[in-house]
Amino acid sequence: MKIAVLGYGTVGSGVVEVIKRNYDNIAKRAREEIDVKYVLDLREFPGDPVMDVLVHDFPTIVNDPEVKVIVEVMGGVEPAYTFVKEALLKGKSVCTSNKELVAKHGAELLEIARQLNVNFLFEASVGGGIPIIRPLNQSLTADEIEEITGILNGTTNYILSKMKDEGMEFEDALKEAQEKGYAEKNPAADVEGYDACRKIAILTSLAYGMQVQYEEIPTEGITKITATDIRYADALGGSIKLFGTSKKVQDKVYAYVAPKIIGHKHPLYSVNGVFNAILVRGNVLGDVMFYGSGAGKLPTASAVVSDVIDAAKHQNVNIMQLWSSKKLNLEATKTLKNQFFVRVAAKEKEKAEKLFDIAEFVTLGGQEDEFAFLTESMMEEDFEEAAKQLTVINSIRAEM
Amino acid sequence: MKIAVLGYGTVGSGVVEVIKRNYDNIAKRAREEIDVKYVLDLREFPGDPVMDVLVHDFPTIVNDPEVKVIVEVMGGVEPAYTFVKEALLKGKSVCTSNKELVAKHGAELLEIARQLNVNFLFEASVGGGIPIIRPLNQSLTADEIEEITGILNGTTNYILSKMKDEGMEFEDALKEAQEKGYAEKNPAADVEGYDACRKIAILTSLAYGMQVQYEEIPTEGITKITATDIRYADALGGSIKLFGTSKKVQDKVYAYVAPKIIGHKHPLYSVNGVFNAILVRGNVLGDVMFYGSGAGKLPTASAVVSDVIDAAKHQNVNIMQLWSSKKLNLEATKTLKNQFFVRVAAKEKEKAEKLFDIAEFVTLGGQEDEFAFLTESMMEEDFEEAAKQLTVINSIRAEM
Repeated sequence: MKIAVLGYGTVGSGVVEVIKRNYDNIAKRAREEIDVKYVLDLREFPGDPVMDVLVHDFPTIVNDPEVKVIVEVMGGVEPAYTFVKEALLKGKSVCTSNKELVAKHGAELLEIARQLNVNFLFEASVGGGIPIIRPLNQSLTADEIEEITGILNGTTNYILSKMKDEGMEFEDALKEAQEKGYAEKNPAADVEGYDACRKIAILTSLAYGMQVQYEEIPTEGITKITATDIRYADALGGSIKLFGTSKKVQDKVYAYVAPKIIGHKHPLYSVNGVFNAILVRGNVLGDVMFYGSGAGKLPTASAVVSDVIDAAKHQNVNIMQLWSSKKLNLEATKTLKNQFFVRVAAKEKEKAEKLFDIAEFVTLGGQEDEFAFLTESMMEEDFEEAAKQLTVINSIRAEM
Repeated sequence: MKIAVLGYGTVGSGVVEVIKRNYDNIAKRAREEIDVKYVLDLREFPGDPVMDVLVHDFPTIVNDPEVKVIVEVMGGVEPAYTFVKEALLKGKSVCTSNKELVAKHGAELLEIARQLNVNFLFEASVGGGIPIIRPLNQSLTADEIEEITGILNGTTNYILSKMKDEGMEFEDALKEAQEKGYAEKNPAADVEGYDACRKIAILTSLAYGMQVQYEEIPTEGITKITATDIRYADALGGSIKLFGTSKKVQDKVYAYVAPKIIGHKHPLYSVNGVFNAILVRGNVLGDVMFYGSGAGKLPTASAVVSDVIDAAKHQNVNIMQLWSSKKLNLEATKTLKNQFFVRVAAKEKEKAEKLFDIAEFVTLGGQEDEFAFLTESMMEEDFEEAAKQLTVINSIRAEM
């Protein structure tokens, strides 16, 4: 089977490498040999064997009837969306790692694939190499999904781990992540939570079979987290993680991205560094957790190639994925219940005790002008109303 | 679609319950409603609604052309094997949670299913509710699997967790597990590692596409682990877990079941209580880990029902599972490399230092007549040879 790869960046070159390295094993699993006939990129790569298959125009690829599967690993919505749509309409299956594309146009592209009896697959768009899309579609099918909570962004998890392990401030940990190539020069997509937002939008759409508009997901990053917050979390026996979460309570679906302090018994407590992990709670299954490399050239390429193999095994057969274009209306998070960790000016202790049902007080050496506490579980709107009356230095959701 | 359930024990009644409880969601996923037409059990259940569908003879079920899928949750090799084989030969798909049956006859039953274009599915046979069989078959396909290591038995993990958290001796923790219904009256299958042995045999057969004879897997349980060993492990910053492991080193495949001390950075370190977790290492993917309830009525039933849904979606289509009846010859573990934790009589310290390349010494208050140490990584046969020359109180494999 001939395939084409759109984009010879990190993931694209990884896909070419994985197909070459595990050629025989892949052929066994796909029931036929898989060869890269074209790689599309605007650039030249002198000296790289990819030059033999490199092309600079998409029509050459999409008009070649021998190409059955197209791998889209360019990233960004355009021109990816135009290319992918055209490929599907020409009866080719598409495998992509592009979370923006999937979050924005997933329902439409799945519908086109369904009509043309081909496949639109995107295992690598969430959690890098971790199998999560296929398990959600094919394994966790006997359950009503009650909650999905994930550490979905390796960059922010690396930064938070560094801050915890080495007492670093956010800016210094970010700088180190940038030096190591874990964070972009413009880190907003990661540290502001936008990346995690796209990913939880995809998972939520798949879990409930309807389209979640990611723009409607309340999204908070980690830029407000300080070394002092982390020391407090430590003192409480907790750890701060950036979560993408969706929850179904009766018929209401909530989704949000926010940092949270969790205790050491939480299954995601020991997920550190650039690793990702996703917890899924089913109404009969209970909790299952998937853990692995959430990014990186080869792990992400491995997930893309597993999709290519699936596409090879399902030629002219559409693999069922429940995700219609019907809009999923998210509930406002203000009625969600959470615990809260709150830092307040020292002089307001009595006031705080009147306003909140306090589960635990914490004080830190060197922070004599303030104190912190952990509330019992309460509605977000009630928390905000009460917090307004205090001089809050910082507050973070908690589950201790 | 009509199905039949063989066996109305814990898992069987769970299957009936899950199908009832999530009826609409299951119908959406399976593309048709799923109804239990028969339940086979020798017993009567007066007052239970199951009486409406209860039958006492298998021929009624297997000769009913309306029954498309048979769920086998009786356990044990016979009569399960006879029933399952007959069902497949009659063109019905079979979903089972029966690890003995799958470990012993998996290759043959898969081959019959292939020939008759039906399916033999067994997600629930390993890891209870944790999706692991389907991910191995369908998600981790781009990789050469280098290692599978799992906490595959919830009973032993519960016992070891109790011993660690409360300083209990093995016998007392076992007694408590029995009182809570986590362990059988005859606990040998769990505590001697036989259960984990069947499960790692299944995973290894699937990973390498050949039949592993579970009788050939060196299997060591946890009956020799004492409260003192656990205190030593604690002192080293480690935790003792019972692992089922298979490893591919070049073209050699090793498999064994044994307790091991692991450090807190190991992804399975914080898997406690009755939970299971399975780590899979791919040559391009790196490590992925799957975690959840390894047993229990509803989680196991959830996995069985996900197989029923898959069978409904694949009527007259065989889902590819690479597991031939060709025998996989396991390498003797004596050439495998491991670290070892060793307890030795106090007077032999000098001798031990001569015999081993020692990574760390440990002593415990109250254990003045002995000491312990951790070796560097070494071949098992070399370890045994050297250990023979000492008065070893206990030794445990380690990965610190």
